[in-house]
Amino acid sequence: MLIAKKVFLTKEYTFGSGKTVPIEAGYETYGTLNADRDNVILVCHYFSATSHAAGVYTDKDAAPGWWDGLIGPGKALDTNRYFIVCMDNLCNVQWKNPMVTTTGPASVNRETGRPYGMEFPPFSCRDVVEVQKQLLESLGISRLHAVVGPSLGGMIALQWAVSYPDLLEHCIGVITNAKNPAITSFQLQHAVRAIQLDPNWRGGMYYGRREPEEGLRMAAQMMYTGAFQPDFYEEQFQGRIEQDVYYSSLARASFEKQMDEVIQNNARLVDANHWLYTCRATMYQDVSRGFPSMEAALARIQADVLLISCEQDVLQPAHYSRKTVEQLRALGKRAEFYSFSSPNGHMAGVLDTHLFEEEIRRCISRQLA
Amino acid sequence: MLIAKKVFLTKEYTFGSGKTVPIEAGYETYGTLNADRDNVILVCHYFSATSHAAGVYTDKDAAPGWWDGLIGPGKALDTNRYFIVCMDNLCNVQWKNPMVTTTGPASVNRETGRPYGMEFPPFSCRDVVEVQKQLLESLGISRLHAVVGPSLGGMIALQWAVSYPDLLEHCIGVITNAKNPAITSFQLQHAVRAIQLDPNWRGGMYYGRREPEEGLRMAAQMMYTGAFQPDFYEEQFQGRIEQDVYYSSLARASFEKQMDEVIQNNARLVDANHWLYTCRATMYQDVSRGFPSMEAALARIQADVLLISCEQDVLQPAHYSRKTVEQLRALGKRAEFYSFSSPNGHMAGVLDTHLFEEEIRRCISRQLA
Repeated sequence: MLIAKKVFLTKEYTFGSGKTVPIEAGYETYGTLNADRDNVILVCHYFSATSHAAGVYTDKDAAPGWWDGLIGPGKALDTNRYFIVCMDNLCNVQWKNPMVTTTGPASVNRETGRPYGMEFPPFSCRDVVEVQKQLLESLGISRLHAVVGPSLGGMIALQWAVSYPDLLEHCIGVITNAKNPAITSFQLQHAVRAIQLDPNWRGGMYYGRREPEEGLRMAAQMMYTGAFQPDFYEEQFQGRIEQDVYYSSLARASFEKQMDEVIQNNARLVDANHWLYTCRATMYQDVSRGFPSMEAALARIQADVLLISCEQDVLQPAHYSRKTVEQLRALGKRAEFYSFSSPNGHMAGVLDTHLFEEEIRRCISRQLA
Repeated sequence: MLIAKKVFLTKEYTFGSGKTVPIEAGYETYGTLNADRDNVILVCHYFSATSHAAGVYTDKDAAPGWWDGLIGPGKALDTNRYFIVCMDNLCNVQWKNPMVTTTGPASVNRETGRPYGMEFPPFSCRDVVEVQKQLLESLGISRLHAVVGPSLGGMIALQWAVSYPDLLEHCIGVITNAKNPAITSFQLQHAVRAIQLDPNWRGGMYYGRREPEEGLRMAAQMMYTGAFQPDFYEEQFQGRIEQDVYYSSLARASFEKQMDEVIQNNARLVDANHWLYTCRATMYQDVSRGFPSMEAALARIQADVLLISCEQDVLQPAHYSRKTVEQLRALGKRAEFYSFSSPNGHMAGVLDTHLFEEEIRRCISRQLA
């Protein structure tokens, strides 16, 4: 699939916080919108990803989009049947990626002529849902066959199911949860504070100066070291520690330098403030916000819900999703839980799509009464 | 048991790195040394602990030493039978605890009249073993019935078994490993870099000035959030996130403030450089250093080895210890592995001694051929 990036513009979007800002958001589509406009699947991306969920831009691309295993002709999210849309999140972390269009702290505030920095309104998954809804409306789409996503993308999918229960038929969340687990919130909090601790952060106004590279590196490494099972790091960063490392107070071992290279490569396109904002959106995500209880929020859901977890995932432990599905069923909802095993831990939701593609295909194909 | 702290002094100790420094180390003893001086058990303490392993200093102490569940009359480490010694590690993190005596970066270098800072030689578990050995020799002790310890203390115990195979009969490591797992090394590396990133760290020479409180807070929280199972944090730091937190780029939620208080209390007696040095000693620990392979190092061991793990421990995952015991057995050694389940994860090695005290009692009581 050869894909072209498109851009959606709103002259003004009013955030949950009440602040109004013009928003640009890149998006991609796969497949064809049918005449009834009822074959639409919205795919929501994870923390560090972009709207490039499938296909390639040119024949020379090194790799296809991040969920290409699931999206394409004949695949679980079958582009012969469905029209699939994926949008760059607000404050997408890959600010420096020329294929990403997003609005966030690094964007220039037209009122001041300078980047917003910390003046940019914080976003939540609810804001992402609202902008996605406006994008869909601009395409003439008012109903969704499904909303699907892994990790933060799954949180956005579940937020859709609670915020607009009558607009979607299926909601599929992979390696995700209705509320971010406390332990993961603390890891994200570390990332936020690492960026803020870097003297180059300067209260978020580092644009045009040296960027908070070390804080961002720590923030990105924090997520990377939670993403896989312990054995992964043993295999990837092996090797003996050099004798001189033991004899120095400051020297770094080769396995640390190796990790630095991995993280430097991963964070090369990232803006630190966008990372910080996305951390906050993830760490505070809770579909029950504003409701008296989680049950009260889940009671609103009308969609068929499928939650898929990896048993080795430490960032979004499987038992939270299992419990959400039990709660949904106790409320009389159609909900299913599926889990699988993979040494890739959390990343299995992106790397091991073959382990759960049939579950997604089956859920998506089911016609609701 | 009412305990008195004692202090051991060496006029000069030469570190593995070759640097020579006078060392002071606090220690405690429980029970009575017998005439043959062959009833000695050395207990090695974990990362953030001290030599106060058991008993109380006064009747008014709020809590006894950290392994009081195991050490005392009739307990697994029976003070009616054994003479038990525990020493403050080199660079003990609790520099500000008046009951701790240790030498490290915060100590004054007599040659310059200023604290050593990063000029202090880095230590490894091998250095701790050497200083402990000198302390024992000063007490007229040349052989050990057992060396026992949890976490970093267990690493020191295993280092004893490799470094001085003919000096100990039993080696018991709890929630520990012969080599620090890569994933835990990366967590410790985060802690080191968080301290170094704090502008108040000033290359380690912050003494007499503002200390790197935020870096140390991050370093300490990093360890605390790895120490328990995920559910622990869900239960301890519950509560809904305040509405204004969603609407601010910088506000912290009450669960974050609650964690700040816990960490502030935990880190109140800590020197940041001592924490940094102890991180390095832990992250690079590997009993096979200098040997062609782990097998070659383990082949030296003559002691009876017992490794005890908590299945929910993410910092020192059980399967590494299980593998070490398999390797020891393949080498014809006497080695046992025991694991138990606890929601306390890594901390179960300190908090849930009732879950493994019988294993320790049985191992310690066994007479070797």
